[in-house]
Amino acid sequence: MAIIEQSIRISYDKLKSEFFRILSSIGFPEAKAEKCAEIFTMNSVDGVNSHGINRFPRFVKNTLEGFVKPEAVPSLVHSLGSLEQWNGNLAPGPLNATFATERAMELASETGIGMVGLANTNHWMRGGTYGWQAAKKGFVLICWTNTCPNMPAWGATDPRIGNNPFVIAVPYGDEAIVLDFALSQYSYGKMEALKNEGNKLPYPGGFNKQGKITNDPQEILESWRVLPIGYWKGAGLSLLLDILATILSGGLATHQIHSCSSEYSVSQIFIAIDIKMLKNFPVIDNSINQIIEDLHKSNPEDNSVKIRYPGENVLKTRKENLENGIPVSKDAWEKLTRIRINS
Amino acid sequence: MAIIEQSIRISYDKLKSEFFRILSSIGFPEAKAEKCAEIFTMNSVDGVNSHGINRFPRFVKNTLEGFVKPEAVPSLVHSLGSLEQWNGNLAPGPLNATFATERAMELASETGIGMVGLANTNHWMRGGTYGWQAAKKGFVLICWTNTCPNMPAWGATDPRIGNNPFVIAVPYGDEAIVLDFALSQYSYGKMEALKNEGNKLPYPGGFNKQGKITNDPQEILESWRVLPIGYWKGAGLSLLLDILATILSGGLATHQIHSCSSEYSVSQIFIAIDIKMLKNFPVIDNSINQIIEDLHKSNPEDNSVKIRYPGENVLKTRKENLENGIPVSKDAWEKLTRIRINS
Repeated sequence: MAIIEQSIRISYDKLKSEFFRILSSIGFPEAKAEKCAEIFTMNSVDGVNSHGINRFPRFVKNTLEGFVKPEAVPSLVHSLGSLEQWNGNLAPGPLNATFATERAMELASETGIGMVGLANTNHWMRGGTYGWQAAKKGFVLICWTNTCPNMPAWGATDPRIGNNPFVIAVPYGDEAIVLDFALSQYSYGKMEALKNEGNKLPYPGGFNKQGKITNDPQEILESWRVLPIGYWKGAGLSLLLDILATILSGGLATHQIHSCSSEYSVSQIFIAIDIKMLKNFPVIDNSINQIIEDLHKSNPEDNSVKIRYPGENVLKTRKENLENGIPVSKDAWEKLTRIRINS
Repeated sequence: MAIIEQSIRISYDKLKSEFFRILSSIGFPEAKAEKCAEIFTMNSVDGVNSHGINRFPRFVKNTLEGFVKPEAVPSLVHSLGSLEQWNGNLAPGPLNATFATERAMELASETGIGMVGLANTNHWMRGGTYGWQAAKKGFVLICWTNTCPNMPAWGATDPRIGNNPFVIAVPYGDEAIVLDFALSQYSYGKMEALKNEGNKLPYPGGFNKQGKITNDPQEILESWRVLPIGYWKGAGLSLLLDILATILSGGLATHQIHSCSSEYSVSQIFIAIDIKMLKNFPVIDNSINQIIEDLHKSNPEDNSVKIRYPGENVLKTRKENLENGIPVSKDAWEKLTRIRINS
């Protein structure tokens, strides 16, 4: 049975003020409510409703449950010079990640490269947010987070590793090239949506309960056996990103993050590089331009499809949604406007 | 038609002295011939003949052609403090990469994290070599290289991006956990071998000339349309790793590395982290142990198969091959012993 959701367009200001209203009502101080509302809104503006309006009610729930501490701030645990270890103190994930990105950039400004290991933090929502933040200010950013166990190891049937979203961003003119992906081939949200539309995945996305590889989202949602990108390769990368996030932040590992519904106290890594300090800085923009020009010269399999770099579509989506309003599901919008917290 | 190669076992010393003999005859100074011979031998010891004995004749050829300069050494171009840019001066790839790893570790010893961008270098053979090198001395290492264009971008039919091998290594007790993979799902060597044995790939590895995804190695070797890991995700990662390798080293990008047979003047990145300096250093080994113990508790799909961490098999292979000799193809060994250079 296909379920088609009705979509409406909501302006940036209207969506953001709704987020702000709710965050203020659940204990967020004004500046934090403002910043958090901005991040959730921009995620929807950029076409990532799964970490914008659609995710917001869960963020509110996790805050009310006490997993997200609206007033908390990160604290420095240990400094090695260009590498710092911070405790996120369960402050809101997007605010902690914004802070850690900024701090990694400050460290990079001193010695070229800076790294922050952030323990005991919360879900950062959309990793690309921090890639854009750094790259727009002239820094390379490499960052990742661990998650609850949501994917089986290679050859296994039970979820013990995380899909550990991974981000690489580089400045590109006044904008950025931002790669932002999870290590599962498809997100549960994407598979849920395709299942509801009665569609298959374009490529296999997991194994069914019988251990056969499949592109049927329903079968994968039943087995919970999502496919890591590149099969054994992505499974290995997931493990190593988890080990690094854990030991470099001094925080919890995927196997210690027990609940996928609250998913609190995750570990994150932020590495910034100040490209202004590089010998070849004057020609960097030109170097990247040449790489992108060469990519664009690719022969497409389908002539109607342009070969793109990661994030290339975002600018268009962003411009369009800022001008015409953000497409959101009518249900999600109504659900949002109905949220009333009695404190 | 299945071609089965006859395998023989050659001792570490015998293989290494054969490499040393040949390297000495093509202009390698003694210490460099010794180190290079050791690396090629260890690659075969660890079961990676594709970057050991099987690759060596091509390395000799590239040296004789002048692409690899046996006496060259890297030179410092620019220092930012914790990040340095070096020119590899086309010195032998494995020696440059060994040096860059060591230098990144020295930088990390000062500020926690150190990075070397290495331009104008040569193929490093097996990336895992440098992961083991750093991790055995107590450092995390993240490193990658760009390559010639050997993979189409996502949606494209002509090779314009690289399979850019990527390595993450962490110390694990006295040994290491080493992830070492290229961004193509299968190497050309692997596909060639399976084709010769008359076998299919276990999972799809590319597109055929008709644009259909396939697990027939012959079809992929004809189309040159290998699959990036995770489809569009690995293609994006390839592009970003190339951009970073290029701009952070000040070297050439994949689109500028024209010939895949010589493949010289590539760009590489080495990031080292000194875990001894971390606040939680005393418990790091325990943290990693717990992660691996949890991984090993996975329910295997097939009860006869153990769920493993990346590099787990290498120690066993290494021990066995050091004790009983290294399995190499009889042809490859005879080809090696016949190499005589008249200088």
